[in-house]
Amino acid sequence: MRVLGIDPGSRHTGYGVVAADGQRLIAVAHGCIQPPPDRSFAQRLAHIHEKVAAVIDEAAPDEMAVEDVFLARNVKSALRLGEARGAAILAGVRMGLSVHQYSALQVKQAVVGYGRAGKDQVTQMIRTLLALRTSLNTHAADALAVAVCHINTRTSQRRWKSLESR
Amino acid sequence: MRVLGIDPGSRHTGYGVVAADGQRLIAVAHGCIQPPPDRSFAQRLAHIHEKVAAVIDEAAPDEMAVEDVFLARNVKSALRLGEARGAAILAGVRMGLSVHQYSALQVKQAVVGYGRAGKDQVTQMIRTLLALRTSLNTHAADALAVAVCHINTRTSQRRWKSLESR
Repeated sequence: MRVLGIDPGSRHTGYGVVAADGQRLIAVAHGCIQPPPDRSFAQRLAHIHEKVAAVIDEAAPDEMAVEDVFLARNVKSALRLGEARGAAILAGVRMGLSVHQYSALQVKQAVVGYGRAGKDQVTQMIRTLLALRTSLNTHAADALAVAVCHINTRTSQRRWKSLESR
Repeated sequence: MRVLGIDPGSRHTGYGVVAADGQRLIAVAHGCIQPPPDRSFAQRLAHIHEKVAAVIDEAAPDEMAVEDVFLARNVKSALRLGEARGAAILAGVRMGLSVHQYSALQVKQAVVGYGRAGKDQVTQMIRTLLALRTSLNTHAADALAVAVCHINTRTSQRRWKSLESR
């Protein structure tokens, strides 16, 4: 199974595709989408949408996972974040992916095993889990973390199902 | 010129297409998009996106105007509103429309001539301006108001240009 994780933001949208191969987790693709600041706000949204669609086209994930946000500096930044989030999610749903949401707490719990873990701890753990040797953008790390969180959830669900059907 | 006005919202997205024919303003289309509540949040966003795209396809507006929001009950509702707004805007920009933003103050000023006008006053004035006899959804009225506001702005800009070129 392949999962596209998204860490949405109007200036930086992190993405990461993780493949689960038995027990092994592989980072298929990851990066950070940065809409050109000289474009109009509508064109920046279209940029996020198109880039996420291009990642889906290339890396062919089966499902999409996005961090659900409950915190923002203020209403204005929450609106901008929502727009970026909507643009990314829409790329997934338009391309036939099911979209799943996880809180930051759930993601940290799944990746670090501790819900209050710091950003550095998440990045470090993702580097270790996915055996990444090159430098890793923090937004890409967060996106990979959401993807890993969703894969964990799916794996647990499958395990429960197989126990039930015994 | 034809303008599509949008009053975005996760549960109700108002739309209204206004055509300017000389001094006359005509309501070409208007209504309210209500995503089915039993669908997933991602599918509800896709619903808004597709319905706005269908309106553009049918009513063929030249430009799009959206109310810019600065107020929301809380961060959570601002995020949901931003997502709906992003889904609607993306339909416009993907179909080649330029997208323009106006504050509620600007819209009320343009339609009622008074920035602190109430919702009822806006609806009443839109009904009069566009000679609408049937009942009018408040979200559709707000959407038509943004469209009228944008047409006013464009008309003023043209007037200034023609004065300058004399």
